[in-house]
Amino acid sequence: MDDITLEYVSSINDDVEIIQYDILGSQAHVVMLYHNGVLNLSDLKKILVALQTINDEKIELVTGAEDVHELIEGLVIDIAGAESGGRMHTARSRNDQVALDMRMKMRDDINAICRYLLDAAESMLSVAQVHQKTVMPLYTHLQQAQVGLFSHYLLANTDVLLRDFKRLYQTFERVNCSPLGSGAVGGTSISIDRHETANMLGFDGLVENSLDATSSRDFVSEYMAMQSILMTNLSRIAEDLVIWSTSEFNFVELADEFTSPSSVMPQKKNPDILEITRGKAARVIGDTAAVMAISKGLASGYGRDLQEIKSVVWRAARISVNALQLVRSVIITMKVNQKQMKKASVSGNLIALDIAEKLVMKGVAFRVAHQIVGSLVHTAHVAKKPIRRLGSDDILNAVEGTGVQPHMVSSIISVITVNSSIKDRKSFGSSGYAEQKRMIADRVDVIGQYREILTKRESKINASIKHLKEEINEIVNTSAGE
Amino acid sequence: MDDITLEYVSSINDDVEIIQYDILGSQAHVVMLYHNGVLNLSDLKKILVALQTINDEKIELVTGAEDVHELIEGLVIDIAGAESGGRMHTARSRNDQVALDMRMKMRDDINAICRYLLDAAESMLSVAQVHQKTVMPLYTHLQQAQVGLFSHYLLANTDVLLRDFKRLYQTFERVNCSPLGSGAVGGTSISIDRHETANMLGFDGLVENSLDATSSRDFVSEYMAMQSILMTNLSRIAEDLVIWSTSEFNFVELADEFTSPSSVMPQKKNPDILEITRGKAARVIGDTAAVMAISKGLASGYGRDLQEIKSVVWRAARISVNALQLVRSVIITMKVNQKQMKKASVSGNLIALDIAEKLVMKGVAFRVAHQIVGSLVHTAHVAKKPIRRLGSDDILNAVEGTGVQPHMVSSIISVITVNSSIKDRKSFGSSGYAEQKRMIADRVDVIGQYREILTKRESKINASIKHLKEEINEIVNTSAGE
Amino acid sequence: MDDITLEYVSSINDDVEIIQYDILGSQAHVVMLYHNGVLNLSDLKKILVALQTINDEKIELVTGAEDVHELIEGLVIDIAGAESGGRMHTARSRNDQVALDMRMKMRDDINAICRYLLDAAESMLSVAQVHQKTVMPLYTHLQQAQVGLFSHYLLANTDVLLRDFKRLYQTFERVNCSPLGSGAVGGTSISIDRHETANMLGFDGLVENSLDATSSRDFVSEYMAMQSILMTNLSRIAEDLVIWSTSEFNFVELADEFTSPSSVMPQKKNPDILEITRGKAARVIGDTAAVMAISKGLASGYGRDLQEIKSVVWRAARISVNALQLVRSVIITMKVNQKQMKKASVSGNLIALDIAEKLVMKGVAFRVAHQIVGSLVHTAHVAKKPIRRLGSDDILNAVEGTGVQPHMVSSIISVITVNSSIKDRKSFGSSGYAEQKRMIADRVDVIGQYREILTKRESKINASIKHLKEEINEIVNTSAGE
Amino acid sequence: MDDITLEYVSSINDDVEIIQYDILGSQAHVVMLYHNGVLNLSDLKKILVALQTINDEKIELVTGAEDVHELIEGLVIDIAGAESGGRMHTARSRNDQVALDMRMKMRDDINAICRYLLDAAESMLSVAQVHQKTVMPLYTHLQQAQVGLFSHYLLANTDVLLRDFKRLYQTFERVNCSPLGSGAVGGTSISIDRHETANMLGFDGLVENSLDATSSRDFVSEYMAMQSILMTNLSRIAEDLVIWSTSEFNFVELADEFTSPSSVMPQKKNPDILEITRGKAARVIGDTAAVMAISKGLASGYGRDLQEIKSVVWRAARISVNALQLVRSVIITMKVNQKQMKKASVSGNLIALDIAEKLVMKGVAFRVAHQIVGSLVHTAHVAKKPIRRLGSDDILNAVEGTGVQPHMVSSIISVITVNSSIKDRKSFGSSGYAEQKRMIADRVDVIGQYREILTKRESKINASIKHLKEEINEIVNTSAGE
Repeated sequence: MDDITLEYVSSINDDVEIIQYDILGSQAHVVMLYHNGVLNLSDLKKILVALQTINDEKIELVTGAEDVHELIEGLVIDIAGAESGGRMHTARSRNDQVALDMRMKMRDDINAICRYLLDAAESMLSVAQVHQKTVMPLYTHLQQAQVGLFSHYLLANTDVLLRDFKRLYQTFERVNCSPLGSGAVGGTSISIDRHETANMLGFDGLVENSLDATSSRDFVSEYMAMQSILMTNLSRIAEDLVIWSTSEFNFVELADEFTSPSSVMPQKKNPDILEITRGKAARVIGDTAAVMAISKGLASGYGRDLQEIKSVVWRAARISVNALQLVRSVIITMKVNQKQMKKASVSGNLIALDIAEKLVMKGVAFRVAHQIVGSLVHTAHVAKKPIRRLGSDDILNAVEGTGVQPHMVSSIISVITVNSSIKDRKSFGSSGYAEQKRMIADRVDVIGQYREILTKRESKINASIKHLKEEINEIVNTSAGE
Repeated sequence: MDDITLEYVSSINDDVEIIQYDILGSQAHVVMLYHNGVLNLSDLKKILVALQTINDEKIELVTGAEDVHELIEGLVIDIAGAESGGRMHTARSRNDQVALDMRMKMRDDINAICRYLLDAAESMLSVAQVHQKTVMPLYTHLQQAQVGLFSHYLLANTDVLLRDFKRLYQTFERVNCSPLGSGAVGGTSISIDRHETANMLGFDGLVENSLDATSSRDFVSEYMAMQSILMTNLSRIAEDLVIWSTSEFNFVELADEFTSPSSVMPQKKNPDILEITRGKAARVIGDTAAVMAISKGLASGYGRDLQEIKSVVWRAARISVNALQLVRSVIITMKVNQKQMKKASVSGNLIALDIAEKLVMKGVAFRVAHQIVGSLVHTAHVAKKPIRRLGSDDILNAVEGTGVQPHMVSSIISVITVNSSIKDRKSFGSSGYAEQKRMIADRVDVIGQYREILTKRESKINASIKHLKEEINEIVNTSAGE
Repeated sequence: MDDITLEYVSSINDDVEIIQYDILGSQAHVVMLYHNGVLNLSDLKKILVALQTINDEKIELVTGAEDVHELIEGLVIDIAGAESGGRMHTARSRNDQVALDMRMKMRDDINAICRYLLDAAESMLSVAQVHQKTVMPLYTHLQQAQVGLFSHYLLANTDVLLRDFKRLYQTFERVNCSPLGSGAVGGTSISIDRHETANMLGFDGLVENSLDATSSRDFVSEYMAMQSILMTNLSRIAEDLVIWSTSEFNFVELADEFTSPSSVMPQKKNPDILEITRGKAARVIGDTAAVMAISKGLASGYGRDLQEIKSVVWRAARISVNALQLVRSVIITMKVNQKQMKKASVSGNLIALDIAEKLVMKGVAFRVAHQIVGSLVHTAHVAKKPIRRLGSDDILNAVEGTGVQPHMVSSIISVITVNSSIKDRKSFGSSGYAEQKRMIADRVDVIGQYREILTKRESKINASIKHLKEEINEIVNTSAGE
Repeated sequence: MDDITLEYVSSINDDVEIIQYDILGSQAHVVMLYHNGVLNLSDLKKILVALQTINDEKIELVTGAEDVHELIEGLVIDIAGAESGGRMHTARSRNDQVALDMRMKMRDDINAICRYLLDAAESMLSVAQVHQKTVMPLYTHLQQAQVGLFSHYLLANTDVLLRDFKRLYQTFERVNCSPLGSGAVGGTSISIDRHETANMLGFDGLVENSLDATSSRDFVSEYMAMQSILMTNLSRIAEDLVIWSTSEFNFVELADEFTSPSSVMPQKKNPDILEITRGKAARVIGDTAAVMAISKGLASGYGRDLQEIKSVVWRAARISVNALQLVRSVIITMKVNQKQMKKASVSGNLIALDIAEKLVMKGVAFRVAHQIVGSLVHTAHVAKKPIRRLGSDDILNAVEGTGVQPHMVSSIISVITVNSSIKDRKSFGSSGYAEQKRMIADRVDVIGQYREILTKRESKINASIKHLKEEINEIVNTSAGE
């Protein structure tokens, strides 16, 4: 193979991330072969020693190898000899092997991301805790809509992240199944025990059908989609903070370590991390489309097109892990400009809906109330003063033809403030004071529960791997004693 | 608004699919308002009668309306009068309303698609049942790889569809939560009961946080991703069948009703349905990217960009439902050309791996066996005859330097046939005879269980809606009696 | 065909947009057949009369037809009789026909979009003309960077739109080639003249190779990409205006007819048209990916997957046309809040770079100047006062260790204003006063030239079509006289 | 900055590909500053020597640098001293600098890809030359449609590649414009000459408006779209060859060096390069969507999101260059199995349309002819024999009710062969013999012309760069003499 061809077809650079999983998979495979009488103890030991050596020496990826499976098998044969090493690939193919490696890496990545999600959610909660009284405008269409609290914003995003956790947690169910033992496409006549390798490697079950196990990549599309959604969610947070850290909004000031200076304008503090988060979200979305476009229209059975999926998947995990850590850091280190948030809340006509609701509570039909308040807002806008400063003529004007008493309107206006508005906001999940407290307490609980189920899941895998390593040690050492 | 503007901003054509849900949502909302003392019985009745009228008369979508929410409220005010009708929108906004409507439609669509998935899987199984002895080549890289069975192919795709079921079944958990009562963005000061409306409408819970409830669309991205994956899976089946129905493969012949004639070539039978399935898969993939690109970078709070999501979501459901029915029909009506499949299986060197495995079982290292068989295949290819017809010289040549006895090789060759190969294929999930039987029986069970949990889910929603309708009837009729 | 199948495979709803082109194509085709002796005058006349009838009666799309080609041929046979009408499809296939219809529609759409692009660019220019002295901050990273002029912003976008024109103008070259006469895939043995039909229909040339002509859709991918880019450009303008019309920025106020009121918050003026523009941009991006994913991996020769492309292409044109008109309308009707723009320009430290550049002109190394000004900005920020109000101590501090004389710094500070900054900005294409004038005059010229070449292109097509219609009239009328 | 932050925001790994352009840009910039009196000769020389040193020593990318611009400026300051080196960044920003570097790299990549496109097209032509008599079936819907020639297939793809050339050649016009001198966003007050740097660096013009020059990336979206289209085109070729190299089709056999062996199945020859080409096409499509999604919704002015675009762009060029070389190599080295192609052409009913056309030429209406031949094909299919072997009864049956004489049909059938079919196929651009010859000759000419315009374009850039380097040498050496 010439250089161009090799560069084109080789996945060796991407495979660096699955070397450890490839070795683990081979270890479990040969131990199982031994248990099932396909491999004798002597060959087993030689292969295990060779694999351990490769693992310990952190092999340099040799240029010229097409992929990690070929590379490692070659090294095992070099170390253990062809007679023993040449038996490692018995009852196996690169097709089930690469699916195995991907699934082992992806499940670890899912668990890591899940943990970072909980950390980020927890940090959001801790900042929300502090800002339960920090009044700010809530926006729709980027226009000021209702008065709210900064904690409410953070709680909304806490819930978003907890859904991301839930999604990835469920995707794990489809990832953590072992394809090992499916061979190239149709299985094998050699007596192997697929359940045993699955158990040794901490899988929760099998991808049974050998054709399915070697050629389906729906678990990757699903995984990528989940990463896209997660990054899209972080991108929305980034978008908010970019806008809120403009001079014009001035709601937050990002910590110096998370902004970049300008090469020519000394006054600038650029929110680069947030912008890059938006950019990376777009990358992951594009990569998800790529994975799906690769799968679509592929005939059944492994096709080399699927190789192009690997680097995309590794990168997605790296991006999510970093983005979660950084967005979290940005949020816990940024300075919240409460004064400015309050000022923006007070200066607009954000209490318009509150006035209308008070009218409704006094028996006015909502549409009539809406019309009256609409008229007041319009008059206030033209006169460039807040509703609160409108004269009795203005109010008279507003209620005209509605049958509503002007003094009912003026008495409502006189008592509504930004504070009363938030105090009165009592619907479940609303941005009122009481709901903040309730939701924070509840989410603390939820995060605790999620941590537990995640830990349990990780422990199960760790225990299996630990057990496998102990058995290997035992075999190798017994061997030494023989 | 001029015509261009209206065409641009109006969603009324897309909204036709959520009219019934919008009416249902309004019914539950006003009944709840009445229960909580916000609406009196008289106003309630008038509104309910108006909504019923609109529902029964299957309103024409009036041009000029911007969306269905505005349209229906306008009609209610026309029918019930402003004093009563003007109270319907109390403690509600289009922002929570549109989220509600989408979620109600999407949960129904998920349930429908889940049902079609089970139907399709069941049909696959029934065809697999018939073809447990239909020998065919299994492919990797579209090259003949191992001998297999047609049932194995169908079982692989059964498992794929069952995973699609599982995915959508879990996505439902995030869809079937009520956003109603979140108002524009921050909730309301009017005393409403969000849990009550959620129950009345058959939801399993709430999207609690009002900002989250009105502006998050991660549930849509997730839903679209699941549809993309499902369609990608169907596209792969389509790709296989398109190739297998070529003159060159000639493995299957599609039924006339699922092919199209050529406008100029009378001999042709084009697999249009399968091709369109591939095309539609690409559309859904693109639409998923679009939904994510819309969400990404949107500031928090409802933005009108989100309106563009609606038609995409409706279409995806329509596509999945139709594609599932048609792919299923294509599979149960197509003629399977068993003779041709057998011929292709026999003529190639598909038993190469089987020979190698037999050598392994006799103690030869896999790599050595691989090399010997490789040499045999090469010689056979050059001589243009099957391995079985190679002479003793050829075998002598192949084992040279390996220490393997030629007669071991020749005796293995003499007994291996396509049939013995499949019979010996015994690994769990393999394409051997025994595994087909086991897997078919098992999947029949799984489908049965899935049908049960799906039915339970649908029944819960139906019961809630039925109960709501009964309560409405009671209220309206009592009213008549007063 | 049952209903589901028909709904799935039929393109009749999408085809409504190409009926006129299909008829035109058929007219040219049969006239050419007549000229080449394949059709006699009598048959020709009958077919032409039938086509004219169909065209004039604005046929209802009959349910049950699979596509427009079949439908129209069927109607022609109904009207003209099988003996004559059955000859229309001679030497033609639906495969070259659909490619023809798409190309004819797309070239007209390109020309229309090009015209709307020039209109929009011209309007930008006219607003820029008015705002050559309207000072505003220019942003990078959404942070205030340098002082600039509103006209500069509009001129930047004028240039963007002119590039969109250029791109589509060039794409036209690949669209406006005739595939007619390529048959199903390999051409025909009947003596036809492809150049003649191409000329009659106003094409600039042929897609020669019959396989290429019927199965390539790269011209569609290119067209969609250009629409994506155009919409992305409009989306960026929309994003700017959405941000600038917040209460916090308050740089522009959109006209009432291009904003929407809130259903519950009477104070709101939502920039829905701009948001929808962003949303539609995402849709077109997704659709472009879909078109490419459809094409990718398709074997050569027409495949029905390609049918899915049609509706995507029609919609893209509709979106671009509407978006261009509306964004243009938004810009020419919005109120520009010059006072607020000026205030934002003055209050920040936007002249920081200008101070540094003055120091450079006095011989200070740029990095030293950057450091001095950085120190001044920092001190000013901490002291919450503008640079201009810093004391001599602050300046002394800033120059410490640089060798720069403090009075040099203070004298520069004392003369630099927002106005002087823009006046001194003289680099080619900069946001200085002089450059605005030059660029406006230049772009007026460019738009004029572009209008000319566009008109010429449109005229050529119109003349061809007119000529064809005259010939048809002549033939039909002569016929009447016989 | 901690490690995670740096990994996240740093583009240094991507920047390795633009180091040479960054240095070139800096060289031109400082020479221009000197010419315009902003820099004195001594400082100029020191900077030029430093830049030369950096260039010659092939600097290692120092970890810790955020990007290449900062890195190189830092090194220049290290080497030339702060007093001189600190002047290099005068009247410049990273914002115009990165746009400059990207454009210089992209124009070189476009020229390289254009050259590889012509090479690939030329090779296609040369293979077509050899196969002008190689009969094969042409397909639509992957079903055999008409008889054709292998050269026709190759010529179709030659035309596709020539359109790719044309597209990229035109995109170059928008790429090869200099943004240098636009500063951060609004230009500069320092007297620079943008036209001069543009000329020195071989640009054809300027991106004039400084805001446009620094923040627009439509030229990247366009470039990526063109790469997507190119790769999609190669993917279709790959798809054809994958199918044609199956055992079942057996039309071509790929050379050993472009296939991969199986790790377990010794008989296999997998078309990995072609599959990877399909996979990479999907990657580029996804990346194009990513670039557009990044741009969409970005406010005006440079945003750091744009950094994410760089690696995508570099990779696209690398993919296209390699894919073009490899697809070309695959085509010129593959073995074409003419016998099998002929056999497939003869065995089907591929002459059906030819029979119908002959009937048309004898005056039968096309639809009638189509019906007669349809009946013949149907009878032949049922009877499992070729049309040629149908009896007179079958023919009688087929013409029944059509008024066509059976002997007319039988005499046509008796003379039509695969050969006569191709001989009679005479329409312009058809798959007939004569057209192959004409098209080959013509495309040889076209490729020649394209080579010329490409060479001219490359020469212009090379001459400019050469001239710049000479001037630099002169300045540096003069300096040595002082």
